[in-house]
Amino acid sequence: MDGTIGIIGGTGPAGRGVAIRLAKAGYDVSIGSRDAQRAGEVVGAMAVPSEGAIRGVANEDAAMADVVIIATPWDSAVATAKALRELLAGKVVISMVNALVREGRELVPLYPSRGSMAGQLATVLPTSRLVGAFHHLPAAQMEDLASGLDADVVVFGDDAAAREAVAGLIDEMPGLRSVVAGTMSLAGAVEAFTAVCVSINIRHKAHSYVKLEGLGN
Amino acid sequence: MDGTIGIIGGTGPAGRGVAIRLAKAGYDVSIGSRDAQRAGEVVGAMAVPSEGAIRGVANEDAAMADVVIIATPWDSAVATAKALRELLAGKVVISMVNALVREGRELVPLYPSRGSMAGQLATVLPTSRLVGAFHHLPAAQMEDLASGLDADVVVFGDDAAAREAVAGLIDEMPGLRSVVAGTMSLAGAVEAFTAVCVSINIRHKAHSYVKLEGLGN
Repeated sequence: MDGTIGIIGGTGPAGRGVAIRLAKAGYDVSIGSRDAQRAGEVVGAMAVPSEGAIRGVANEDAAMADVVIIATPWDSAVATAKALRELLAGKVVISMVNALVREGRELVPLYPSRGSMAGQLATVLPTSRLVGAFHHLPAAQMEDLASGLDADVVVFGDDAAAREAVAGLIDEMPGLRSVVAGTMSLAGAVEAFTAVCVSINIRHKAHSYVKLEGLGN
Repeated sequence: MDGTIGIIGGTGPAGRGVAIRLAKAGYDVSIGSRDAQRAGEVVGAMAVPSEGAIRGVANEDAAMADVVIIATPWDSAVATAKALRELLAGKVVISMVNALVREGRELVPLYPSRGSMAGQLATVLPTSRLVGAFHHLPAAQMEDLASGLDADVVVFGDDAAAREAVAGLIDEMPGLRSVVAGTMSLAGAVEAFTAVCVSINIRHKAHSYVKLEGLGN
């Protein structure tokens, strides 16, 4: 894929892991935060692969990239995206947001009123080309390029060309394989399964991830 | 595990696949149907492993087994279970029911009013020890013991001892590994992900299945 990539709300472990593997694939990545200085500090502490570059910026600057990933906490995703909607108009926007809450030893899914966080985001980004991806990945393994990660990334969205572009981007990232599942009708199911993955890892003290065996590629 | 196993609504591909791998593990399995004669015909056409036995019976007879699996279509599961609730009282009951509907090329999840089909069943089986399992498996590969299947089965439920018993049973079945996820709070997420698995297989013309890499056993 051509172009730059911005990650809104990207200073957390999940955003950082995606940034590192995008940089390893040769991309210029902007990690955005509400606080640009904090984003700079976070990036300064990261081991950035020499194939690409990672900068810490304000969310507004991250939203100026060619492709934009939304990686905020679930409860600020809609407000953050809404404020940036003009910058995101017409672009491929990737939601990796999950609405999860901790209950004892488990993370359990919340069910957003429109069925999924991607569905919530679609309402405030009506002209963006929204795709869901990067939901089930173990953050620490994503950040560590030597972790041996070999994970599948389930991709969904209603814009087939955007979905395929995101799948191609994922396939450039080391340790990841894209698996296109289908439309936004599957968004809630993909997002909620993240709660199952995290709960399994808490319970089994593991860093497991989803692999779909038998896809034949 | 000691005891016999009954599969209510077990004449479909999903029920037959579970029955065959239970029989291979040495169990006596009763496949139930509303129509005992039909169940007998279905079982007569199956390649039953010599390690165990499979009989075709009425659902009422399947419900008399020591452990009972509910494998009916989602829209008859609650009514069927409710009618058998006295036979199922106090027993380990495994729900493998998913509420899915076809939309074009996809299967999409329905969201039952109590969050999951296991949750619906719990309301009509209040004294049963309800466990969820066997949701994401490819039916044809389950039925074919030579398919090379090596799948993970996500297990959930509120009764920890029942959950562990079901996990142990799954680990006896060739080609399957149990992965305990947690409580009934995860039921909807596990069930709905079945729609993602089936949709991926339709789209990619595959028979893929979930494997959780990195669990370390």
